[in-house]
Amino acid sequence: MRSRSPFTDQFGPAGDGWRARWFHIIFGHEDAAGRRFDVLLIIAILGSITVAMLDTVASAHAQYGAFFYVLEWTFTLAFTIEYIMRIVVIDRPWRYARSFFGIVDLLAVLPTWISLIAVGSQYLLVVRALRILRIFRILKLTRYVGEADLLWFTLVRARRKVLVFFSAILTLVLIFGALMYLIEGPEDGFTSIPTSMYWAIVTMTTVGFGDITPKTTLGKLLTSLIILIGYSIIAVPTGIFTAELAAGMRARRKRVACTHCGQTEHEDDADYCRLCGTELPASEK
Amino acid sequence: MRSRSPFTDQFGPAGDGWRARWFHIIFGHEDAAGRRFDVLLIIAILGSITVAMLDTVASAHAQYGAFFYVLEWTFTLAFTIEYIMRIVVIDRPWRYARSFFGIVDLLAVLPTWISLIAVGSQYLLVVRALRILRIFRILKLTRYVGEADLLWFTLVRARRKVLVFFSAILTLVLIFGALMYLIEGPEDGFTSIPTSMYWAIVTMTTVGFGDITPKTTLGKLLTSLIILIGYSIIAVPTGIFTAELAAGMRARRKRVACTHCGQTEHEDDADYCRLCGTELPASEK
Amino acid sequence: MRSRSPFTDQFGPAGDGWRARWFHIIFGHEDAAGRRFDVLLIIAILGSITVAMLDTVASAHAQYGAFFYVLEWTFTLAFTIEYIMRIVVIDRPWRYARSFFGIVDLLAVLPTWISLIAVGSQYLLVVRALRILRIFRILKLTRYVGEADLLWFTLVRARRKVLVFFSAILTLVLIFGALMYLIEGPEDGFTSIPTSMYWAIVTMTTVGFGDITPKTTLGKLLTSLIILIGYSIIAVPTGIFTAELAAGMRARRKRVACTHCGQTEHEDDADYCRLCGTELPASEK
Amino acid sequence: MRSRSPFTDQFGPAGDGWRARWFHIIFGHEDAAGRRFDVLLIIAILGSITVAMLDTVASAHAQYGAFFYVLEWTFTLAFTIEYIMRIVVIDRPWRYARSFFGIVDLLAVLPTWISLIAVGSQYLLVVRALRILRIFRILKLTRYVGEADLLWFTLVRARRKVLVFFSAILTLVLIFGALMYLIEGPEDGFTSIPTSMYWAIVTMTTVGFGDITPKTTLGKLLTSLIILIGYSIIAVPTGIFTAELAAGMRARRKRVACTHCGQTEHEDDADYCRLCGTELPASEK
Repeated sequence: MRSRSPFTDQFGPAGDGWRARWFHIIFGHEDAAGRRFDVLLIIAILGSITVAMLDTVASAHAQYGAFFYVLEWTFTLAFTIEYIMRIVVIDRPWRYARSFFGIVDLLAVLPTWISLIAVGSQYLLVVRALRILRIFRILKLTRYVGEADLLWFTLVRARRKVLVFFSAILTLVLIFGALMYLIEGPEDGFTSIPTSMYWAIVTMTTVGFGDITPKTTLGKLLTSLIILIGYSIIAVPTGIFTAELAAGMRARRKRVACTHCGQTEHEDDADYCRLCGTELPASEK
Repeated sequence: MRSRSPFTDQFGPAGDGWRARWFHIIFGHEDAAGRRFDVLLIIAILGSITVAMLDTVASAHAQYGAFFYVLEWTFTLAFTIEYIMRIVVIDRPWRYARSFFGIVDLLAVLPTWISLIAVGSQYLLVVRALRILRIFRILKLTRYVGEADLLWFTLVRARRKVLVFFSAILTLVLIFGALMYLIEGPEDGFTSIPTSMYWAIVTMTTVGFGDITPKTTLGKLLTSLIILIGYSIIAVPTGIFTAELAAGMRARRKRVACTHCGQTEHEDDADYCRLCGTELPASEK
Repeated sequence: MRSRSPFTDQFGPAGDGWRARWFHIIFGHEDAAGRRFDVLLIIAILGSITVAMLDTVASAHAQYGAFFYVLEWTFTLAFTIEYIMRIVVIDRPWRYARSFFGIVDLLAVLPTWISLIAVGSQYLLVVRALRILRIFRILKLTRYVGEADLLWFTLVRARRKVLVFFSAILTLVLIFGALMYLIEGPEDGFTSIPTSMYWAIVTMTTVGFGDITPKTTLGKLLTSLIILIGYSIIAVPTGIFTAELAAGMRARRKRVACTHCGQTEHEDDADYCRLCGTELPASEK
Repeated sequence: MRSRSPFTDQFGPAGDGWRARWFHIIFGHEDAAGRRFDVLLIIAILGSITVAMLDTVASAHAQYGAFFYVLEWTFTLAFTIEYIMRIVVIDRPWRYARSFFGIVDLLAVLPTWISLIAVGSQYLLVVRALRILRIFRILKLTRYVGEADLLWFTLVRARRKVLVFFSAILTLVLIFGALMYLIEGPEDGFTSIPTSMYWAIVTMTTVGFGDITPKTTLGKLLTSLIILIGYSIIAVPTGIFTAELAAGMRARRKRVACTHCGQTEHEDDADYCRLCGTELPASEK
């Protein structure tokens, strides 16, 4: 049985002192105490984000502003204590502090503290939204990890195709944006080439806000063309992803050749060739 | 030949009394009388929904309001009688009343009756729209059931991938919504983070209403980025579904039990059981 | 060698009289004269549609109205002569007159003639747009027919899945439309349930005109949900079509079992099994 | 080892004179000097496009107009020198000048020179956007070429299906555009059939600007129908592309020539030639 948290063995303090115990609670996800901490942390993260969100709604701020202020500081204090604990119980605190989650954890509490000194810094609270990623990390230990991995590796495998595709899109956006700027001109909302390119992206991707629209006949003709081209190439990323995903799902088959008939595609759990009944050689993996 | 309605054997009254006869007409879908009842019910459901829909059109209400009122009560009376009959003829009425369709059947008639006492309750008629689901239940016995099942099981098989995907989308929506709120601010329509998130969903999914649009250069730049990201990940659910569906279609397995180990799922071209190597009996089809 | 126009043998006049010659020119697509006629017809159809289109542009009508009028009558006369010729040279004129293309051919000329008697009937010219379908018929003889057939049969094979899918969509549209009508109400543009359903279709399909948008918080929340659901199920028709098309393309493989190793999937042109080198039995088809 | 630039052997000057050396720097991409030139060229192209873009932004033009003017001429001079050098060092200058990139290279510098004589010609600078395609040419030598090729050949293989598909779309656009023109009329924005067709394209592709929207009940009904049809056929190009791409990826054929009949395309798992049954030589990879 392989250990589910090699991470612990690397960075956790040895022995059974209070540091080791708290390390397992805060960083570990295996035992009951660690899971209770994880659940509490997820609730706190979602709660603090909800408060920060609702506080920007004018009517809610007017009515519950003071209440939100108290909650805000409660979460900040809790997260600060959590951050200090993380620094204290880990063996290589500096390494944690410089890691992605270390920085996010710090950025989640800093703005509120800074707001004591500098006015307006509470806008930085937006950074706290990044803490939501920690939920993914915790959930990583659930059964969803296999699916997320398949999706992720599919995206990684498709990255070059996607890059080529995006270069082509951006070139088209530049050329069509420049053309529309010439045809329609500033009086119809195409005030500059960057604005035209923004419009071209909005149009080719079929978003179509409608804040800028062609007014001239030639502009409408070119727009129709741009849309049809965009409509055709919407197929490309979908096709890339689907083909890669299908290949990934197919690749889960056992690739071992039958010693008698040579058939190489067998289901995952096959022990005998389904075509000739010969026992299959054990696969290495 | 297996019975097409094991449901009848479980819940229907035994014998040939009037209750058993009506049970077969109302709940059954096999014989001529049951089918006639089904057709009548579908017509009544579609009719009552059409009346409720048209009654909300101001001009139609002004002209045919009284006529709609009579039709409304006719349908309500018919559905009430149907509901009482269902309660009377079934052996376990309480179980039916608490089932999904039992509740929907009740909710379909209650609002009109309540409107005699309380004003404004006729708005609850919207609930009647749910009765349309009964049509699916009736149609379930047609040849479309195989296709619907394939689609449904594909969605069920893909549910974890879809959940992972939606969590990722919502995180992006939160982060981009918060950023746009900071960049554009209330004066451009991004009045709060929830509103910004609504805008981010509308934009990333390429709906693009245009009721809120970026005005600043930085906002337009970020919008272009958000759109391109949304455009790329539109591929993900399509890819997931297509790959699963293709796998589901390919896996139309041979349903023949191995005489040695009892394994019932074999690939189309299998002649030997892949688990124990025994030759499979010839399948009938 | 199989005849490319069994149609001719069935309906064409026998012998070599002028009727048989003209029949081959008008209905046939094989010899040089028939092809010249086809090209002329395509030009005339496209020309008459272009004229009808441009005549609706106010500025073009003001300037070239008289010229369009002359062209209009020229095309009408030409199409009338063509129609009469078709009736005269075919052996079963009544059967042609009642066929789809027979009716379209008649409808293409009638409006202009009726406009001599009744005012306003020129609007019926829109029917002429259907004549464009004849171009497809003519092009049917080119090499594109195989591709069009594959696409068409894919759509036909997927028809039940598509029907199930559309029933589900329409139910969702009805339920969401009714809900939005209750939540937003007439003052925000959701003036009736049919209008709300129109909005729901526009939104779920990611078109998003923006002529009607939610104003209340609850409405925006429900809209976000509707959009995400719509975004997920956009995958369904794509998935259905892709899976069917891939299956259709794969099905072009030779389905014959190798007599030695039993391998059943071979490329179209395979004469020997690629796994064991045994000669494959001749396939029946 | 096969030469990576057969182009050089054909058009480059023989020997080791300065022309041959500069030819390798400007047209070649293999050695260090050639790569440095490529990098410089990419920077210059991106820089000149950025300047042309920013110069159209009113506020940037007001502030940095003079600076942009200087940069503009710097790039023009550099590109002019580059163009002359290309003409000088190549053996068949006329052939280069008439090639696609030769014309683009000329068009990239001409507008600025012409602007000395004719006012307003600076708008032609938009043509310079086409120079961005040269970046693709240079990048062609990187590892992305395989992916771009796969995407490109997929598009090429799918071209007939796409053409059939677009003809069908345009016919639908014509018919629906004409119908909406009749139903809604000029007072609702459907001022002519071409405008209605523009609207139909915008709607069927789910772009949905919202600049023109149906106002009448019948118009909204037809719009719903058009949208649902458009929504269904959005699946078609995606399906075509995905199926072709999946086929292309699966067909990564074994590239080994049969020793008996010379056939070079074999499936991945082939051990015997499928045309003559000869055992295939082991492939190196």
